[in-house]
Amino acid sequence: MNGPNLTLHTDKYQINMMYAHWLHGTANDKAVFEAYFRKLPFGNGFAVFAGLERIVRYIEELRFGDEEIDYLRTQEENYREAFLEELRSFRFTGNLYAAPEGTLVFAGMPLLCVEARMFEAQLIETAMLNFLNYQTLVATKAARVKQAAPDDGLLEFGTRRAQEADAAVWGARAAYIAGFHATSNLRAGMMFGIPAKGTHAHAWVQGHDTEEEAFRKYAEALPDQVTLLVDTYNTLTSGVPNAIKVAKLLESRGKRMQAIRLDSGDLAYLSQTARKMLDEAGLPYVKIVASNDLDENIIFNLKAQGAKIDTWGVGTKLITAADQPALGGVYKLVAREKDGGYVPVIKISGNPEKVTNPGYKEVYRIVNTRTGKAEADYVTLKGEKGVVDGERIKLFDPVHPYMHKYVDHYEAIPLLQTIFADGALVYELPKLDRIQQYHAKQLTLFWPQYLRKLNPETYRISLSEAAYKLKMDLIEQHHG
Amino acid sequence: MNGPNLTLHTDKYQINMMYAHWLHGTANDKAVFEAYFRKLPFGNGFAVFAGLERIVRYIEELRFGDEEIDYLRTQEENYREAFLEELRSFRFTGNLYAAPEGTLVFAGMPLLCVEARMFEAQLIETAMLNFLNYQTLVATKAARVKQAAPDDGLLEFGTRRAQEADAAVWGARAAYIAGFHATSNLRAGMMFGIPAKGTHAHAWVQGHDTEEEAFRKYAEALPDQVTLLVDTYNTLTSGVPNAIKVAKLLESRGKRMQAIRLDSGDLAYLSQTARKMLDEAGLPYVKIVASNDLDENIIFNLKAQGAKIDTWGVGTKLITAADQPALGGVYKLVAREKDGGYVPVIKISGNPEKVTNPGYKEVYRIVNTRTGKAEADYVTLKGEKGVVDGERIKLFDPVHPYMHKYVDHYEAIPLLQTIFADGALVYELPKLDRIQQYHAKQLTLFWPQYLRKLNPETYRISLSEAAYKLKMDLIEQHHG
Repeated sequence: MNGPNLTLHTDKYQINMMYAHWLHGTANDKAVFEAYFRKLPFGNGFAVFAGLERIVRYIEELRFGDEEIDYLRTQEENYREAFLEELRSFRFTGNLYAAPEGTLVFAGMPLLCVEARMFEAQLIETAMLNFLNYQTLVATKAARVKQAAPDDGLLEFGTRRAQEADAAVWGARAAYIAGFHATSNLRAGMMFGIPAKGTHAHAWVQGHDTEEEAFRKYAEALPDQVTLLVDTYNTLTSGVPNAIKVAKLLESRGKRMQAIRLDSGDLAYLSQTARKMLDEAGLPYVKIVASNDLDENIIFNLKAQGAKIDTWGVGTKLITAADQPALGGVYKLVAREKDGGYVPVIKISGNPEKVTNPGYKEVYRIVNTRTGKAEADYVTLKGEKGVVDGERIKLFDPVHPYMHKYVDHYEAIPLLQTIFADGALVYELPKLDRIQQYHAKQLTLFWPQYLRKLNPETYRISLSEAAYKLKMDLIEQHHG
Repeated sequence: MNGPNLTLHTDKYQINMMYAHWLHGTANDKAVFEAYFRKLPFGNGFAVFAGLERIVRYIEELRFGDEEIDYLRTQEENYREAFLEELRSFRFTGNLYAAPEGTLVFAGMPLLCVEARMFEAQLIETAMLNFLNYQTLVATKAARVKQAAPDDGLLEFGTRRAQEADAAVWGARAAYIAGFHATSNLRAGMMFGIPAKGTHAHAWVQGHDTEEEAFRKYAEALPDQVTLLVDTYNTLTSGVPNAIKVAKLLESRGKRMQAIRLDSGDLAYLSQTARKMLDEAGLPYVKIVASNDLDENIIFNLKAQGAKIDTWGVGTKLITAADQPALGGVYKLVAREKDGGYVPVIKISGNPEKVTNPGYKEVYRIVNTRTGKAEADYVTLKGEKGVVDGERIKLFDPVHPYMHKYVDHYEAIPLLQTIFADGALVYELPKLDRIQQYHAKQLTLFWPQYLRKLNPETYRISLSEAAYKLKMDLIEQHHG
């Protein structure tokens, strides 16, 4: 999966800061950064973490080659040559912890944690955020679509409207994680092993003297893959009747047509009528695929109206996450090395959500052992023992700390896995099908009220009392 | 600019149709496709065409290698081996016509036209739409931002929120075409020669014991590039005063601080107060940069409130085109070879906007020679002579044809340039700075009412009478 060199896929200020650290002799000081987002997208109750495989490959391939060094030299006359020389031997030598892809994640919890030399931790911020923001966003959008049509076929059809080529393939992969069955994008199929599906375009029909001829020739060429697009001229008076003729022809050759595809018009009415026509023609096995600017809300409404659609081709609105096209993931310094230890640091803001949670931390998913369901996520300072030992813990809302409860019978599942240790990849990236299965299993860990599409209950991310106290102390210090 | 092999960056149905054409002996039949969009984005009066350089590189590098062939073999048992062999020698051998990048374009006009073997014209649809849809969208969004702040500095800051890596770099390029001055993304800078700019992050400040120390060390490292981010703790009580101290220190060393950057809070109030503080400290030359979820509307409002901001860092909302994250560009068959000539073809739809304009066509921008301003674009069938010879032409709205006017004194500028002729690149791709200049000049060709951000006047795309008659005849034929 070698691609272009992404080492300079970063903001210039990262290199400026690396340079300033290098010049002042602090480049080797260790730092701890956490990535998280402050608000769930689409009003959803959860997000689906994705982007880790991309991040792993990126970090493994980080190298400043001649082209990169030469470019930097021309860009900034302040950079000393010895700094550029230092970049030549740049490798990631730190630790990286992250949630597995497919994990349900929530606002305010660390998704990814980097412990590395300042020099390294800074460089990788931009690309990591770029990857996890987009892929998590699309996986989350896809999970909403999946929820609207849990038992139907779901095809990712967005390439032509995606925001450039990378979005098309990584978006297809993110959709698959959340339960989509296939993509139209062949490169995504080749890169990730996602099933690739396709029918034909209007141009195929327009390219023949008659629609019937076009359908017949398509069926002759790909007899095991026949899905016919029926709306080039008129869906019900021309498209469906011609498709029925071709289905009968296929039957006479011992083959079965797979489906028709509706791509415009009133999909509820057209699908019901087409279903009836197909059934009356003795073709109950021919499925109906629909496409045309679909999203989870349109699908939900079409199903409520009794649309007879078996498979949904979802394009633009999924691949661009149209109703909220960016996840606001951030990467914040939480601790830095000083005099041989870590000092926790905070970012203050007039906006309470923007005040960071200081300190090097760990995250546990607290699963009630009696119900098997998750109660909350619990964020501790690194090394806190209570939760690991199963002691009674107090869960409280960090914004409204008077809202609290105690939990006794729980399993505390650590959410962040070690991905890189001292620069070595120690995590085995799961196959994509395994990630899809893991995600489906994750969903069963949560009560339905956290999962519903509209006005879900808020799943709590709770700070340990020690983590909360540290935050309050640092705020106090800065105000004092 | 070699990247990954994008030959399979296409929908599976394209290969299916190629296969069906190949099997039925119609793969060599010529076809004419046009790309256009039906609706301008953001309620804007125009769009800025972009994506051509990417399309040219893509077409030049189209090759089915072993990996691609092997993948296709596993994907579709219907594909015969001879077809896969044929793909090995695939090259684009057709003609491609397109508007130059930076051209102002409008709904319904052909932006790009492909005349090629069916086999080739079909394969390239998906990627070309993917590229032109995204880049045109971002260039258009950037043109709106430029309009809100025509004389200010404009920095593209979106990488971390872009929809994956390609969007970051190609979006930065699109923004530059529309008049942005720089990007934060170094890879975009390296690939396209766009100036790369950057300051420092909150982490730089958090990484030191005091903000003042952090500022001072940054200024010592990059004395010619000092823009200080002043909102880590408190903008007015801490950030700006510390920045002033460092500016004075720089002055004592014969250097001048460039700017401070505001990244949160009330940017109108903060910028006014910070400006006053800087001026009173004798630092009128220190500029103010602002960022934080900006777009053209926020910038317009901040300026109306008298914000003292010299340079705008625009991120998420530009790079994702947040208020409309997809341009609905389509690629439609308009003519096909039959018996040695071209037969025009149409796509019918219950929705009038979705009925295609049939026939192999040309587009002219009709510029009034007395005013020097564009009157309308005029779409003819290929080879129509009247407009080229300067004859009186009738301009009318194809949706409301009774609305018309005659034009006598005009220059008819052909909009589509020949990019590839018989597969050979015959167009010299302009340098990016030239594209930016060309775009700026394009804007002067239009009356201001077409250019305004809110409720612009509709610039007309007029069909010639022959092109209109052909469309009506084909609609008649299909309904008859």
